[in-house]
Amino acid sequence: MDKRLLAVAGGKEPADVVIIGGQVVNVYTGEVYPGGVAICGQSIAAVGDVDYAIGEGTQVIDAQGAFITPGFIDGHIHPESSDLAIRPFAEAVLKHGTTSIMTDLHEIGVVSGIEGIEAVLAENEATDLNLYFVVPSHVPFSPALETSGASFDPGIIREALKRPDAVGISECVGPYILADFPDLMESLDDVAGMKGKTAQGHLVEMRGPDLNKCVAAGVSTCHEALSAEEILDRARTGVHAMLRESSAARTLAQQLDAIVGKDIDTSMMSIVTDDLHCCDLAATGHLDHHLKIALEKGVPFAKAIQMVTINAARAFELTDVGALAPGKRADIALVAGDTAETFEVVSVWSRGKQVVDHGSMLVHYEPAQHDPCLLGTTTLLNPITADSFKIAAPAGAKRVKVTCMDTLPWIPITQPREVELECVDGYVACDVAQDVLYIAQVERYGKNGNVGKAFMGGFHMTSGAIASSVGHDNHNVIVMGTNFEDMAMAVNHLIEIGGGQCLVDGGEVVECVSYPVCGLLSDLSCEELAAQKDKLNAACAERGCIIGIPFMFLSFICLAALPALAITDHGFVNVMTLQVEDPVKEVVE
Amino acid sequence: MDKRLLAVAGGKEPADVVIIGGQVVNVYTGEVYPGGVAICGQSIAAVGDVDYAIGEGTQVIDAQGAFITPGFIDGHIHPESSDLAIRPFAEAVLKHGTTSIMTDLHEIGVVSGIEGIEAVLAENEATDLNLYFVVPSHVPFSPALETSGASFDPGIIREALKRPDAVGISECVGPYILADFPDLMESLDDVAGMKGKTAQGHLVEMRGPDLNKCVAAGVSTCHEALSAEEILDRARTGVHAMLRESSAARTLAQQLDAIVGKDIDTSMMSIVTDDLHCCDLAATGHLDHHLKIALEKGVPFAKAIQMVTINAARAFELTDVGALAPGKRADIALVAGDTAETFEVVSVWSRGKQVVDHGSMLVHYEPAQHDPCLLGTTTLLNPITADSFKIAAPAGAKRVKVTCMDTLPWIPITQPREVELECVDGYVACDVAQDVLYIAQVERYGKNGNVGKAFMGGFHMTSGAIASSVGHDNHNVIVMGTNFEDMAMAVNHLIEIGGGQCLVDGGEVVECVSYPVCGLLSDLSCEELAAQKDKLNAACAERGCIIGIPFMFLSFICLAALPALAITDHGFVNVMTLQVEDPVKEVVE
Repeated sequence: MDKRLLAVAGGKEPADVVIIGGQVVNVYTGEVYPGGVAICGQSIAAVGDVDYAIGEGTQVIDAQGAFITPGFIDGHIHPESSDLAIRPFAEAVLKHGTTSIMTDLHEIGVVSGIEGIEAVLAENEATDLNLYFVVPSHVPFSPALETSGASFDPGIIREALKRPDAVGISECVGPYILADFPDLMESLDDVAGMKGKTAQGHLVEMRGPDLNKCVAAGVSTCHEALSAEEILDRARTGVHAMLRESSAARTLAQQLDAIVGKDIDTSMMSIVTDDLHCCDLAATGHLDHHLKIALEKGVPFAKAIQMVTINAARAFELTDVGALAPGKRADIALVAGDTAETFEVVSVWSRGKQVVDHGSMLVHYEPAQHDPCLLGTTTLLNPITADSFKIAAPAGAKRVKVTCMDTLPWIPITQPREVELECVDGYVACDVAQDVLYIAQVERYGKNGNVGKAFMGGFHMTSGAIASSVGHDNHNVIVMGTNFEDMAMAVNHLIEIGGGQCLVDGGEVVECVSYPVCGLLSDLSCEELAAQKDKLNAACAERGCIIGIPFMFLSFICLAALPALAITDHGFVNVMTLQVEDPVKEVVE
Repeated sequence: MDKRLLAVAGGKEPADVVIIGGQVVNVYTGEVYPGGVAICGQSIAAVGDVDYAIGEGTQVIDAQGAFITPGFIDGHIHPESSDLAIRPFAEAVLKHGTTSIMTDLHEIGVVSGIEGIEAVLAENEATDLNLYFVVPSHVPFSPALETSGASFDPGIIREALKRPDAVGISECVGPYILADFPDLMESLDDVAGMKGKTAQGHLVEMRGPDLNKCVAAGVSTCHEALSAEEILDRARTGVHAMLRESSAARTLAQQLDAIVGKDIDTSMMSIVTDDLHCCDLAATGHLDHHLKIALEKGVPFAKAIQMVTINAARAFELTDVGALAPGKRADIALVAGDTAETFEVVSVWSRGKQVVDHGSMLVHYEPAQHDPCLLGTTTLLNPITADSFKIAAPAGAKRVKVTCMDTLPWIPITQPREVELECVDGYVACDVAQDVLYIAQVERYGKNGNVGKAFMGGFHMTSGAIASSVGHDNHNVIVMGTNFEDMAMAVNHLIEIGGGQCLVDGGEVVECVSYPVCGLLSDLSCEELAAQKDKLNAACAERGCIIGIPFMFLSFICLAALPALAITDHGFVNVMTLQVEDPVKEVVE
């Protein structure tokens, strides 16, 4: 029992900080009314009429009519998608009013295992961001189809669930539940037996009996609904529906059609970002940006705020965050307006500490001294040369029919395209004119030296090669190019610097971003990294690339769970059959 | 993992029971739409379109357009106030659609300790009523001012909290928190440290800093708001507000003014009964009656249903009850209409078992073989005679000024009245003409033989005496009468039969109801007991009593926590000073 908090709440001692002159957004009742908040230490002592808590030594802050909301909660985000290490990431989202996130740090786990995740969780402790850990339910997603740095079994997950900051398991894949995948069912059983832990779903396109089975198995949230109908269907079925606007899937506005202008209870809905690119974070913000979309769309102000605060807290059965009330964590945002035009995060407190004042950061977190398990994670078993990427032509063939995988331009979903390619010196040559490039994934944990190879379309690059050590769900090095030499150089450069993303053209590293942490993350600030990434992406665009965020697209093209085709270190994967295929289909002449 | 449930939910096996042709009341989204529910074992397998779950052996029930709601939850009720043992109580409330209750069994605890409570919880296991145990935070309320059969310390409470059916602690008294009462603060600390356990408040008239302190201390619900303003104030402060309509306090309609016609989020509000007399239960029902009040008042149907289902579940952080969704407990009510006039519980399922069919009970629970600790709880240390009740007059006094406590006619709140009484044979005589009767409480655990004595007004009884072994918060025998002989006979009769309530007049037991269980509860059915109680109350009314439920009033007049005056076995208690006083104030002549 915090005796001083009780004394302050009860009016016997003065508060540390009192915010007055605001408009309290009460997420319990959905009301907005004049008032303030009194803070004692890391907790809220009083809300509403708080003048009584002002005494000697109290810092009094005049909100000047700003709206006072709870700090925002992102119920589903992968910080790794920002390419920022956890400390600069924390700085970046706190600036936008986000004080809590729920995350599985899945990508860290894929590279460095639970030890790596624990190291990142420890790094975050130096920040003011409240991080709830949702234990990854699969590391990696497709162990039979990819090589990863680490893998999880139910025992690892069970132990991780015992952490006090663990709130459940994440990304329970619908088809795995339908197939009664034993490891996942075991973990779901573990969650069911632990009070206050939940199972987060990844229920793409699931409805009816399939959805019912996943819910009966214990899944209680899902962030994979794409349409308004799916959102409503999940909420009706007892699944907390996370409306998502990510850098790769911009579907929030259409999902909001489920509630706008309708008399629907929104308590089972929240807004999340899932994967948020550092360039978007730098340019448009975090949940504050999403709130503007919701307000623009016509969601009432208090309801919109509920969707990034108390609703998210309730989805995780958390009672100490997401609302302004005595005893809750003093996570508070002051926002300037209640319309899409005027909405802006002005000041932010996390655990009672002011971290943002009128848009300026009051805190800065130095880069962490990273645990050794997070560093030097790129190792080749065998040297990579131009020859490593050659796909052998059938003996004597001059021309072959090949399956090229094309990405859609707006989302990294792949589709097959039949093309004819020339054979040169016994291998199949790419054809820039037809937008058929080489693509490969190089195993980078020094385990087996695998190189998976295939052909890629949709990017429309015309020269050079790009490579990245970020690739779901194994984070081997993915490389795409117009020639083998640039591809080899790009891969070797990344291995040498411990991971990153680069463009090589004509035997020269044109642009490069370094990701020393797990080959995934940078210690730069969000703005610095966004500037480097902008240059890198611009250099790709100069070479014809029509995909604005080519590296994020590449990272999903290695995902053996995303239809219809993928490339992993095991080879060219048909996601529908879960088999590795030869991209060369037949000899034409 | 219930594999058959998953198979049924997923459409691979037929359901046990499928209800079709209803109107699903979806408490998640607040919608009502055509559909049904599929049941597998004790759980719901599907909701909405459930035709796919019908197969060979499935019992198909046509709801014929009835509304399908979750079984009702009473988040705060003392079953003992019905004077029914737990089994007939369960039968009585199930009939009205209530499938879950949260209760502290405080009265059992006062008489027979935690052992007695555990025995009653075990008795309930033979029923279909889902009982969540909220551990009493004080047994008895005022140990310095009353003698009880048992008392609790924080160690007993801590152990009880570990029970899987324990969901928190109950009746945390506001003034005790304000006074930092050490035992209570220790229990609140214990609750804060246990996931999924909550602290239920008893925060009479608390607002502002006092309320803030109680909330900061961890109190998360309260059922003691009387007005709409207090309801709203609690919800705004993060306290789940239980709107109460009890047999002793009929305040629901006025509390509903907080929300009717207003755009207030009601997720932090539920409807409870607290103390429900068996006569009310028999005559008007349980939460179904309260729902009619809410509908009559203009609460939208789905919102009203939420207030007796999901809202109550959320207040206790329970996720397996209170809603219709795959994997939830199959607690279901069919109700005939959605207006005050048409609303009626038609059929009820609890844990998948149908217990009510078109208003008829399908189950009957035989009286329990009570644990010995629940029986024979009335023992006198010394014989009780007419002399036991005499209040000595000051030496030589003929006429004295006395403080008589009067009850208000609509609520058992007492107020002082100064009266002059004659002295006869050295004691102070009552005066029926002035409506001043004798009242006393006789210690009945064989511990110290205490008899507390005072004068009572407000009942307007003109002859005889009534006695009861039900008296908060100690359940000693309370007796009120116009003469000492009838009082002694009434007390001795109750001691002899092991507890109950009776009216004695002219040396004859006119009416008597027997409560063999802890001196508090009957094994009769609700209807049988209500009939006996009606006769008993009618006999009191024939003797001038203007209080319709005199025994429930008496039971609260011994409560040393209820202003302004009380009678316990320690004596005449001034509740404001917490001191025992002499009712005789001065000699007039």
